[in-house]
Amino acid sequence: MFFLVGLGLGDAKDITVRGLEIVKKCDKVLLEGYTSILTVGKEVLEEFYGRPLIIADRELCEGNIDDFLKEAKDKDIALLVVGDPLGATTHTDMILRAKQFGVEVQIVHNASIMNAVSCCGLQLYNFGETVSIPYWTETWQPDSFFEKIVGNFSRNLHTLCLLDIKVKEPTEESLTKKVRQYMDPKFMSVKEAASQLVQIIERKPQSGITNDTLVVGVCRVGAPDQQIAARTLREMQQCDLGPPLHSLVIPAPDLHPLETDYLAQFR
Amino acid sequence: MFFLVGLGLGDAKDITVRGLEIVKKCDKVLLEGYTSILTVGKEVLEEFYGRPLIIADRELCEGNIDDFLKEAKDKDIALLVVGDPLGATTHTDMILRAKQFGVEVQIVHNASIMNAVSCCGLQLYNFGETVSIPYWTETWQPDSFFEKIVGNFSRNLHTLCLLDIKVKEPTEESLTKKVRQYMDPKFMSVKEAASQLVQIIERKPQSGITNDTLVVGVCRVGAPDQQIAARTLREMQQCDLGPPLHSLVIPAPDLHPLETDYLAQFR
Repeated sequence: MFFLVGLGLGDAKDITVRGLEIVKKCDKVLLEGYTSILTVGKEVLEEFYGRPLIIADRELCEGNIDDFLKEAKDKDIALLVVGDPLGATTHTDMILRAKQFGVEVQIVHNASIMNAVSCCGLQLYNFGETVSIPYWTETWQPDSFFEKIVGNFSRNLHTLCLLDIKVKEPTEESLTKKVRQYMDPKFMSVKEAASQLVQIIERKPQSGITNDTLVVGVCRVGAPDQQIAARTLREMQQCDLGPPLHSLVIPAPDLHPLETDYLAQFR
Repeated sequence: MFFLVGLGLGDAKDITVRGLEIVKKCDKVLLEGYTSILTVGKEVLEEFYGRPLIIADRELCEGNIDDFLKEAKDKDIALLVVGDPLGATTHTDMILRAKQFGVEVQIVHNASIMNAVSCCGLQLYNFGETVSIPYWTETWQPDSFFEKIVGNFSRNLHTLCLLDIKVKEPTEESLTKKVRQYMDPKFMSVKEAASQLVQIIERKPQSGITNDTLVVGVCRVGAPDQQIAARTLREMQQCDLGPPLHSLVIPAPDLHPLETDYLAQFR
């Protein structure tokens, strides 16, 4: 059996009781760490589970996972994923491949930022489609996600913006070399996201979203040191909310009174 | 301290390790059972936790919760909620009231249908706003949710439809009497939802959604006997997926190839 187990968002104890039972009984347990991260690392998880974990990076998940999937025909193999296991397309693809090999799959759901973003008091059913904000480079500054934010905003819907994560990304120089070198991991902050949005607004001033639009930064959701800040977009450029992961929410222009009251705590 | 603890979606073991620790140490533990249900009842949970639970019905949550909130100033009180604790406005309101009384609140997130709907292979970031489909009566047949489905569909977004739940609803006759009488609980099935949608389409034939549109029924998500069925809307009227809870998804018209492949399992 191949198990995909969600770890939730905070630390080791955010796994479910069912998930923990599976981790303890499996023959091999892989830990995926490039689509999201917990506030604790591999060592803390290994101590909590009382067993070793195999790190599953992008290369393994997208290239060499088949070996593990085939092994799961006769053994119990688990892949641990931060948040919910079906948040990323990689895992949907993995399940289809497992089925091709005749391997049974079991999924253990958990909280993900897609529902836990409700911690800021904005109602989940008032969210439109989710967008991802990528890191810009000097020569690559895509802004197509902004149209989706504007689309949601104009229909009075909130937008959850997932912020870019770069983990084990090869450096540009090493792409042509035999030995890959990797960049230091980086995680986009709400500050950085706000600053990219301000630049887009300068180029597209007619969108309805301005530097005075209220935005909400949520950080380390579910962890004891979770932070939430409601600021204008201009102010958010200066708002330091500490270590990753960060997400940014662009609320609808007209809020429900309960949403307004709840957000007031974070001004 | 007042704890709001999410129970996830399947059975007793879907609580997180952190959540279980809180349940075990609290002075009083309330179980909310009218916004959603697990596949197991109060007795199974009590046995698993090794402690009694107080049922918190709508009257208690919306009327008499203040007594418990005030008690949480000096004691540890937990309210257990199926899914994620911030899925319903009732709980956001409760947190604001707790803060007014000077009571600290801690939230333990968990999976909810808002993210676990990804079990059908449709990507979460391609979902537009969520809608609720209410039970119709002979004289009350609202269909405003349909405009939202059409809005999502026309922008190539999926729609999650949450289906009505009637738990401890007073009968109409007893509303004017001293002694309240309650209807049997009922939970809308994908069959019933599909049949209401077919009636709406007859009235509004120009929406782009027809009886031949592909829809997906998801039932008892996260439980061992989870069911997923992909059918035309017409066929879904005859599709019996067993006990509650059910939800219905109206996929976008143009799917990603991986979404199409994944859904093919459920035809």
